[in-house]
Amino acid sequence: MSLDALQRGIAYHFKEARLLQQALTHRSFSADHYERLEFLGDSVLNMVIATQLYARFAQLREGELSRLRAQLVRQDALHGIAIGLGLGALLRLGEGELRSGGDRRPSILADATEALIGAVFLDGGFGAAEQLVVQLYMPLLEGLDPQRSLKDPKTALQELLQARRLPLPNYELVETRGEAHQQEFEMACVIPSLNIHTRGSGNSRRIAEQAAAQQALAQIGTA
Amino acid sequence: MSLDALQRGIAYHFKEARLLQQALTHRSFSADHYERLEFLGDSVLNMVIATQLYARFAQLREGELSRLRAQLVRQDALHGIAIGLGLGALLRLGEGELRSGGDRRPSILADATEALIGAVFLDGGFGAAEQLVVQLYMPLLEGLDPQRSLKDPKTALQELLQARRLPLPNYELVETRGEAHQQEFEMACVIPSLNIHTRGSGNSRRIAEQAAAQQALAQIGTA
Repeated sequence: MSLDALQRGIAYHFKEARLLQQALTHRSFSADHYERLEFLGDSVLNMVIATQLYARFAQLREGELSRLRAQLVRQDALHGIAIGLGLGALLRLGEGELRSGGDRRPSILADATEALIGAVFLDGGFGAAEQLVVQLYMPLLEGLDPQRSLKDPKTALQELLQARRLPLPNYELVETRGEAHQQEFEMACVIPSLNIHTRGSGNSRRIAEQAAAQQALAQIGTA
Repeated sequence: MSLDALQRGIAYHFKEARLLQQALTHRSFSADHYERLEFLGDSVLNMVIATQLYARFAQLREGELSRLRAQLVRQDALHGIAIGLGLGALLRLGEGELRSGGDRRPSILADATEALIGAVFLDGGFGAAEQLVVQLYMPLLEGLDPQRSLKDPKTALQELLQARRLPLPNYELVETRGEAHQQEFEMACVIPSLNIHTRGSGNSRRIAEQAAAQQALAQIGTA
C-alpha cells in the first residue's frame, strides 16, 4: 500500500503532498499531526452528510435527519471506511502507539479518515471534499433504511425477536462505577435462546441498555 | 421591514422566494416550516466557522478550535445576529406563539437564522452560504480573542476579581435534584463586594459552578 494507491482509491490526487502526509500523522509521531485537520474534516463531513440526507429524505423531520446523520458519522462507520481504504498501513505512529496496535485502533483510524477529508478540502476546495465524502459514503447512503435506522436499538431488538417468536431479552445491571454525580452504569443484554450476552455502558441505565442492545443486534447481524 | 430589505441586508437575493419564505415560517404557522432548513443551515454554519477559525488561528489545537466554535454558534450569538437583521418582524408565527412573544424568543430567532443560512445554501450553493456566514459573523470573528475566550468562566471570573483587588467568589450548593444516577446540582456564585448572587445548574458541581460564574461575568458586563 502506498500514498499513490490511496490517492487512486479516493480518486483525488493532492497538489500539496504535505497535507496528505499530515492527515496520516498521529500526535505520537510528530507535532505536525492530524488533529487540526480532523477538526476541519469532521465539520465538512457533517455538512456533506446533512445535505445528502436533506436531499434524499424529503419526508423526514429535523430530529430524524439528525439521528440518521449521527449514525453515519460515528466512529464505527468511519472505522469501516478507513479499513476499506487501507489507511492503517499508511499511518505514521510513534513507537509506543505502534507496539500497542495503534494502527488498528478504531478511534485513530476514524480520526485519520476525518483528517483526510479535511486535507482534501484544504487542497481541492469544497467540491473535491464533497465528492470524496459522497464516494466514501455511497454504500452506506444507498443502504440506508430510515424506517429501520430510526428505531432505537432496544425497540429494534425487541421487534426482531418477536418476529422470530423468540423470548424477549433480559437487561441486568453488571456494575456501577464512579461517584454519585457522575456514575457510569454497565448493563448486560441477555438472550439465552440465541446464546447472546452483550454489555453496554453509559451514564444512565437506559443509555447502557441501549448500548448493550446495539451490541446484541450487531451479533445477530442486523445492525 | 420587508423581504426585500432583508435580502439587501444579507447581500443575497433569492432565486426561489419560496425558500426565503420557508426559512421565516415557524411550525405554529404552517407545515411548510423552517426546521429542515435549520438542520441544513446549522451544518453549513458549523463548517464555515470551522474553516474560518482553522485559517485564522494556526496555533490553536483541535479542542481549542472546538470550544471557540461552540461559543460562536451558540444561541445567544445567533440571536444577536437575528436582531441585527430585524428577523423578528418577518417571522410567520401562529396566533398563540405571536401572543406569547414568539417573535422575540431567542430560540426561535436563532433557529430562523440558521434556517436562513440553509435556504441561501440551497438557493445559491456553498459559495453564497459561505459568503453570508462570513458577513454575518465578521464582527464576532474580528473581535475574537482566544486568550480570553478560552478561559473557563471560573478562571476568568477569578482573574477579573484579582485584577480589581476584590475578594474571590464563594460557590455554595443551593440544591440537588433527581435520582442518584442523574442528579442535577444547583450552585450559587456569591460575590458580596459586588452585590452579585447568581445561580447555575448542571449534572456535576463543577459544571453548575461554571454556569454560575458565567452568569456573574455577564452581570459584571465582561462576558
